Amino acid sequence: MSATIEGRARELLSQPNFAHVSTLRADGSPHSTLTWVDVEDGTIMLNSAEGRAWPANAARDGRISLLVPSSENPYEYVSIRGHVTEITADGADDHADALATKYLGVDEYPFRQPGEVRLIVRVEPDHVFHMAPG
Amino acid sequence: MSATIEGRARELLSQPNFAHVSTLRADGSPHSTLTWVDVEDGTIMLNSAEGRAWPANAARDGRISLLVPSSENPYEYVSIRGHVTEITADGADDHADALATKYLGVDEYPFRQPGEVRLIVRVEPDHVFHMAPG
Repeated sequence: MSATIEGRARELLSQPNFAHVSTLRADGSPHSTLTWVDVEDGTIMLNSAEGRAWPANAARDGRISLLVPSSENPYEYVSIRGHVTEITADGADDHADALATKYLGVDEYPFRQPGEVRLIVRVEPDHVFHMAPG
Repeated sequence: MSATIEGRARELLSQPNFAHVSTLRADGSPHSTLTWVDVEDGTIMLNSAEGRAWPANAARDGRISLLVPSSENPYEYVSIRGHVTEITADGADDHADALATKYLGVDEYPFRQPGEVRLIVRVEPDHVFHMAPG
């Protein structure tokens, strides 16, 4: 039950808006984090690093939800329920650089740590809801 | 294992910043929404209405997470893991009015629907984390 991201929902993900990402801890309780997001060919692309809590959660149980509000109007947002289809280090450094360009206007991801292994987390949307204010 | 909300974390909750609230659906998957928030005597106070998905989730399984970014700097946020201690209609209309004052600068909650039963959802924090940028 895949869903498409189109129209205003796609615009909100393409603009430098932040994604609130919720995953499931080992005990099944919800975990929330705030991260950059991108969309590519209908797939949501997140970026993290090995050792972080939320990609480990996503590897254990791929059920995930995202909420991306407009930075210009917090009463407008896109809410997405989906599942993780891939977690990979392949291309993740380039992807972090692309996100840094999108969000910070710089060529290279500036927060890289020595020895850090970046990860791409791909999410296929199952349900997309766009909340438009009044 | 209760935690206290103090210092900058308390400030972020006291200012008109939005809370991303994650609860668990009946199937255990995460559900995210965006809402107003307040803090009173160390308890997080949310407001919703009967029939909405997330308070029904919270009534079924009280495990909840909140993430409240600063509207002035999205790289600063407070992340809270907690559990719901009470869901009640008592005082919920007044609480909705107080939140409308905080967030919209008006005396009365302007989005009330005919027949709507407002709810207060009280959350006791178990773990509070403040992310400060740079």
